[in-house]
Amino acid sequence: MENFNFYSPTYFEFGKDKENNAGKLVKRFGGSKVLIHYGGGSVVRSGLLDRVKTSLNKEKISFVELGGVMPNPRSGLVYEGIDLCRKENVDFILAVGGGSSIDSAKAIAIGVPYEGDFWDFYQGKRIDKALPVATVLTIAAAGSEASLSSVITHENGMVKRGTGSDKIRPVFSILNPALTQTLPPYQTACGATDMFAHVLERYFTNTRNVEITDRLCEGIMLTILSETPKAIANPDDYDARANIMWAGMVAHNDICGVGREQDWGTHQLEHELSALYDVAHGAGLAVMFPAWLKYNQKHDVMRYAQFATRVMGCQMNFENPEITAREGITRFETFLKSIGMPVRFNELGAKKDDIPSLISMLKLNGRTVGSFVKLNEKDIEAIYKLAADN
Amino acid sequence: MENFNFYSPTYFEFGKDKENNAGKLVKRFGGSKVLIHYGGGSVVRSGLLDRVKTSLNKEKISFVELGGVMPNPRSGLVYEGIDLCRKENVDFILAVGGGSSIDSAKAIAIGVPYEGDFWDFYQGKRIDKALPVATVLTIAAAGSEASLSSVITHENGMVKRGTGSDKIRPVFSILNPALTQTLPPYQTACGATDMFAHVLERYFTNTRNVEITDRLCEGIMLTILSETPKAIANPDDYDARANIMWAGMVAHNDICGVGREQDWGTHQLEHELSALYDVAHGAGLAVMFPAWLKYNQKHDVMRYAQFATRVMGCQMNFENPEITAREGITRFETFLKSIGMPVRFNELGAKKDDIPSLISMLKLNGRTVGSFVKLNEKDIEAIYKLAADN
Repeated sequence: MENFNFYSPTYFEFGKDKENNAGKLVKRFGGSKVLIHYGGGSVVRSGLLDRVKTSLNKEKISFVELGGVMPNPRSGLVYEGIDLCRKENVDFILAVGGGSSIDSAKAIAIGVPYEGDFWDFYQGKRIDKALPVATVLTIAAAGSEASLSSVITHENGMVKRGTGSDKIRPVFSILNPALTQTLPPYQTACGATDMFAHVLERYFTNTRNVEITDRLCEGIMLTILSETPKAIANPDDYDARANIMWAGMVAHNDICGVGREQDWGTHQLEHELSALYDVAHGAGLAVMFPAWLKYNQKHDVMRYAQFATRVMGCQMNFENPEITAREGITRFETFLKSIGMPVRFNELGAKKDDIPSLISMLKLNGRTVGSFVKLNEKDIEAIYKLAADN
Repeated sequence: MENFNFYSPTYFEFGKDKENNAGKLVKRFGGSKVLIHYGGGSVVRSGLLDRVKTSLNKEKISFVELGGVMPNPRSGLVYEGIDLCRKENVDFILAVGGGSSIDSAKAIAIGVPYEGDFWDFYQGKRIDKALPVATVLTIAAAGSEASLSSVITHENGMVKRGTGSDKIRPVFSILNPALTQTLPPYQTACGATDMFAHVLERYFTNTRNVEITDRLCEGIMLTILSETPKAIANPDDYDARANIMWAGMVAHNDICGVGREQDWGTHQLEHELSALYDVAHGAGLAVMFPAWLKYNQKHDVMRYAQFATRVMGCQMNFENPEITAREGITRFETFLKSIGMPVRFNELGAKKDDIPSLISMLKLNGRTVGSFVKLNEKDIEAIYKLAADN
């Protein structure tokens, strides 16, 4: 096991009606003037935004609002949010929504106290300061409600980049699974795929003898496999929604990733896909992960066999573990299809002819991607092609 | 799934040589005058205490010391520590040791800013204030390095009682698995049993449909089953020690317990056992848990069968699940024996004739113990008898 640091200080309130505690929690965590940051009209139509405002009013906490966050959140709204916060002396950012609203809120939080361009932090600058961020989560997926990361697409060139720091871990997050019951099946499946991918990025590692994080990874993946079909068959299944929502958190606060080299290559390949076609991140991952798995399977057949047997329920073929390894990938792809996910370029609206553009967007300049297998340009081309071929 | 709050804000540094960061971390978390609190001579002999002092000196942080914590830590030393901290204006408690040193440190931390008797908090008073506590862990077991709880034995009557609050969650914990390589097999096994028990107390629940915490529980138990025999066979197996050490944390920071009713009855029954005979907590649990499991198995055969198949590797008997349920208990008891744990009163030095004393020490006054099955006095007597019978 490798040395590691682990820090997941977010305070969680999880369950029915918990959004009504937002005001009390903002107060407890020191906010006096809040920016409520959200996406489209659904948080307005559902009455959620009103409930949050009521709870802030109850605690006599003033606030301003900024809606309009889009999937794959953009830099333009971040700049707007930073200006608004400065003008209104906002000292606390409350994201109400899914990963996009939270990521956008995190970007605003680091931008407000910084004199330069917030985009600097998405190009490698170290984050030293940020306003406190908190969340009321409405989509189980990205794990952004506990994670240290934020991904933003810059409108100048549609470049999608991420940053990370303990300074932007939410101080509190409110998770009410009932809020996710209105999510359509496609978005539910995208979320489940995203969290499954967060685990896979940690699971396929060259580090040996990290049984505890292996087992935690497997437990989370087994949960997603069992609960997602329930939530899709019956969107009002509160318990399935609850299991998925908490799985999304533990899939990405790094409790299932410590002590091991992590990969994150597939996320990089997918980022370019969703930046170019503006498709849902989860859908892009559903296309890219089977391809990544297929391409790299010879690198560590026994790890693939472990995934196949412990997670995908395959029988181990002791005479020919490669068969088990392949069967695991097939079953994973079958699972993705069964929950309505695309698994090839054409289902996503992506084009094989764009592969050179995708590769050039990665700006490789000789660097490799990932760590399980360090992928060079040729490898990446082959993986995109596997994802494109029907 | 039930509503819950989850908060585990401790910052962890995990791995080789991490104790040399103690000074830096005390500084980061605002300590300026430290009480180093520890147990016996082993932290002195091993040079660990010196390394911690060197790292404090390097950061120009002054400190006082108080050693002498015993297993099942006593009130006397807590009073002494409180006096010392007040006299020396200590503002930060650093425990160097295992669960006993940490629990004692937590008791001192709540006692210093409180005008009354610290024991009030162990009799139900709510904790509002405490000095920050941090730990350098030397024994993987109790989970006290991340938990909100502390158990102290009052010398007046040898009463063992617990308390808990987020205020006494360690602000940081340093976990170096190499420090546990000198632990003898018996103590290693006691620690593993304690953490396994922390999971079982959460696993046997009446709450339905909490797949995510079920799966996390199972992952932790599977890890303990696979890694403990390795650490006992080869005490220098760093990876086995590391897996066990981190398993101890996740077994008790409640990540595997949220959203469900928890039991904790066996811990109460064991507390009286270790208070009366001053035996290791883990050894007491090894005697009490199989008895508790046997007594309650008819309450939920399918949950026992799930434990048996998913954790203990039994084949499910679909025609007669009771057989699978029983087989799971048998295999668990066999595992405990295999790592050198006692499983009956006589192996522990406990006496069947003392059962009435044990029961009277519980001060039931009509209350029941536990929640999976609410145990009355008659049930408890039967469980102690099962533990006593060879």
